[in-house]
Amino acid sequence: MTTAINSKKIVLVVGAGDATGGAIAKRFAREGYVACVTRRSADKLQPLVDAITISGGEAHGFACDARKEEDVIALVEQIETAIGPIEAFVFNIGANVPCSILEETARKYFKIWEMACFSGFLNAREVAKRMVTRQRGTILFTGATAGLRGAAGFAAFAGAKHGIRALAQSMARELGPMNIHVAHVVVDGAIDTDFIRDRFPEKYATKDQDGILNPEHIAENYWYLHSQPRDAWTFELDLRPWNERW
Amino acid sequence: MTTAINSKKIVLVVGAGDATGGAIAKRFAREGYVACVTRRSADKLQPLVDAITISGGEAHGFACDARKEEDVIALVEQIETAIGPIEAFVFNIGANVPCSILEETARKYFKIWEMACFSGFLNAREVAKRMVTRQRGTILFTGATAGLRGAAGFAAFAGAKHGIRALAQSMARELGPMNIHVAHVVVDGAIDTDFIRDRFPEKYATKDQDGILNPEHIAENYWYLHSQPRDAWTFELDLRPWNERW
Amino acid sequence: MTTAINSKKIVLVVGAGDATGGAIAKRFAREGYVACVTRRSADKLQPLVDAITISGGEAHGFACDARKEEDVIALVEQIETAIGPIEAFVFNIGANVPCSILEETARKYFKIWEMACFSGFLNAREVAKRMVTRQRGTILFTGATAGLRGAAGFAAFAGAKHGIRALAQSMARELGPMNIHVAHVVVDGAIDTDFIRDRFPEKYATKDQDGILNPEHIAENYWYLHSQPRDAWTFELDLRPWNERW
Amino acid sequence: MTTAINSKKIVLVVGAGDATGGAIAKRFAREGYVACVTRRSADKLQPLVDAITISGGEAHGFACDARKEEDVIALVEQIETAIGPIEAFVFNIGANVPCSILEETARKYFKIWEMACFSGFLNAREVAKRMVTRQRGTILFTGATAGLRGAAGFAAFAGAKHGIRALAQSMARELGPMNIHVAHVVVDGAIDTDFIRDRFPEKYATKDQDGILNPEHIAENYWYLHSQPRDAWTFELDLRPWNERW
Repeated sequence: MTTAINSKKIVLVVGAGDATGGAIAKRFAREGYVACVTRRSADKLQPLVDAITISGGEAHGFACDARKEEDVIALVEQIETAIGPIEAFVFNIGANVPCSILEETARKYFKIWEMACFSGFLNAREVAKRMVTRQRGTILFTGATAGLRGAAGFAAFAGAKHGIRALAQSMARELGPMNIHVAHVVVDGAIDTDFIRDRFPEKYATKDQDGILNPEHIAENYWYLHSQPRDAWTFELDLRPWNERW
Repeated sequence: MTTAINSKKIVLVVGAGDATGGAIAKRFAREGYVACVTRRSADKLQPLVDAITISGGEAHGFACDARKEEDVIALVEQIETAIGPIEAFVFNIGANVPCSILEETARKYFKIWEMACFSGFLNAREVAKRMVTRQRGTILFTGATAGLRGAAGFAAFAGAKHGIRALAQSMARELGPMNIHVAHVVVDGAIDTDFIRDRFPEKYATKDQDGILNPEHIAENYWYLHSQPRDAWTFELDLRPWNERW
Repeated sequence: MTTAINSKKIVLVVGAGDATGGAIAKRFAREGYVACVTRRSADKLQPLVDAITISGGEAHGFACDARKEEDVIALVEQIETAIGPIEAFVFNIGANVPCSILEETARKYFKIWEMACFSGFLNAREVAKRMVTRQRGTILFTGATAGLRGAAGFAAFAGAKHGIRALAQSMARELGPMNIHVAHVVVDGAIDTDFIRDRFPEKYATKDQDGILNPEHIAENYWYLHSQPRDAWTFELDLRPWNERW
Repeated sequence: MTTAINSKKIVLVVGAGDATGGAIAKRFAREGYVACVTRRSADKLQPLVDAITISGGEAHGFACDARKEEDVIALVEQIETAIGPIEAFVFNIGANVPCSILEETARKYFKIWEMACFSGFLNAREVAKRMVTRQRGTILFTGATAGLRGAAGFAAFAGAKHGIRALAQSMARELGPMNIHVAHVVVDGAIDTDFIRDRFPEKYATKDQDGILNPEHIAENYWYLHSQPRDAWTFELDLRPWNERW
């Protein structure tokens, strides 16, 4: 990319460790966006950065603890100053750790919320502050069915995901009229990840019948949402395999 | 189009009288689909059929009372026999006629339901019967905010739109595992139509700030839904202008 | 009851054929309300009327086809003229007949809606017209889980129940500020009826562990809703057995 | 009360500082329940404890920081050991502090969640552990409209209230089959409190038309929910003044 700094468009993907975050970064990079990707340890980001670079794109990996306000502020400042304006922001940190309410610890309940909700607030707020000065931008949250309903054994995860949906909805209503498109993607089903392959082999075996979500197909929806003209914005869409029970 | 009959793909748009239905037909025609469009009187369909033909597409207009079971059965039979298999079906009949519950007549309450819900059932069922034999197809319903919540003065319209959403959800859950993609589009805002221009001129005046929905942009979402790979299907998405209060 | 006609308070229960409607009529009668109960054939109402009378209450049975506008108008006129003002109205007609969408007939889809939704509109509207002139009254609808979500095999029933909920919500928003309390009770589970005993014996067998809803306990909630002071009205509550999966 | 310790029934109200919590404690005390009430500083609880005692009831005030796990564990242990089994638990801490998302601080976003959600988790979990050993009990959460939808300026409060609803729903689904009744009360409107009187005098002026919620009337619903027989439990009900827009 030889574009001058102020003509660059940035996508920031927080939580680019998993398959989905990586696929979203690649999807935007394919359209000429500079992909800024973060997770806690930078070295794990290198393969993603390399993959985007090899495909002719531009990518930057950042080690950032998304739960630390000062880190988040510094990250956004650094990107905006040194790379360019963040046009699209994706929050994609999950923390699906089921547990009976009777055995849930305060520490884990807190950590799940801190990772999957609080860090979403911190990052989205910080990015939104920049976007409103430009009166443009897109803010996308990865949600889950647990954001719509609580279930036995999922009090902590449902709490965090409900919180992120409340954040998304509140931001959409406040920032929409400032030309910031805020949307929430409800992923309802298993995603094609190492985690599912290792822990739920029977589920994973449905992959050849398209029974689990392909991260690239999920990513397509993020790009689609970002591309919508502003007279017809979507706040929420759900995604699930054809044969998923719901 | 000179394609042989059995390689043709058909989109059937019921309720193609308004701007949205017409735009959806054109969008699918642009992708090579034969557009079969219906409304009660065929002559009003001619401009739409002509527009698609002139653009190099293929279109057929059908006068069909979508509330009459025998007419609907005959229509689907005729299309499937004489033109080709219906790959995508769009139900797009609305009937937004507000009225205080205290003054709502039985006749009007019934008619609104008959047009906006019952005819959706008839047409979708008839098309679904064909699609399940092929284990493929897409069924799309145009919904409204009134399908999610009732409001003062909207008992009849909300009833019909709730009914169509219940139909869509029931069909999605029954037919998804048969590889039929059923989805529901919640349109929340004024659409760029003659109706809005004539009746709500102040609303219409927001058009140049993108304050009303462009039918072509709505249509894009129908095409998008139809194009989704089956490991990541959307059941529902909403569409509203950036500055709409919700 | 020796109360003069104009001091009488009437509860009208439409759909008093089943266990729930009957229990609601009895509950209100116990509080001194004159119970006007309807179903299609009057003779089946006699045991209910007798039971209320024997307990020292006053009850009147009316044969009324709740789907016929002229019948409904005449019924409400007759009660208001000959018996007294309708203080509380309960709509309790259901029609839970599951069927695959592929085999659902137009006739049955229509009939389910006509019974479970359209007749609710007719009766509630007619009663509301009287209540608004007095600026007081309660209108209660029996809902179901199918009013909140569609399910495979339940397109018709879900459509009707979604419709009745939309009606309830629209009426609540319009009539609340006229001091009419409109509410919707979501019954989620099997009720202790002959129907459940005969058709779902295994379910019925859970009765001694309180696994099915006691109609008298359901009825208590209708009385409770009617009794709420107007600074704290409930629009919707759900009811389900403790061990029901949901 | 001269009842022996093991025949006493306890209601624990966490967040009994405001009008609603106090009214709930009194309502249960009127039925013979020992009211254990907590807030951060004990001295402010004394008037409530006195009022219950004067009316012939039994009450105990506890200074407890509901956000501190060790404090909560100690509180529940102390009550169960020294007073009696907790039959009903009410979580009633709110924290409605609106703020633009652009100016919301991490500290405040966290504190609102910690008070209105995290402390609900801590207390409810701790009480639930006791209740499941007895296979009986009621757990009630005070919710708000912000628990159902996010709004401009309410990201933090909506996040906390969504979280508490997710907790309630998850607990209801897990603990219902253990005979623990979990419910969520959606309060939608201004409550008759000093806060409303001082800050929203125009709203407060609607009190004589019943335009604001009477805490005693709210409390009645908590008692009602606790009293429901287990074949017909309510998970959620809403409460709003008759003339509230919603």
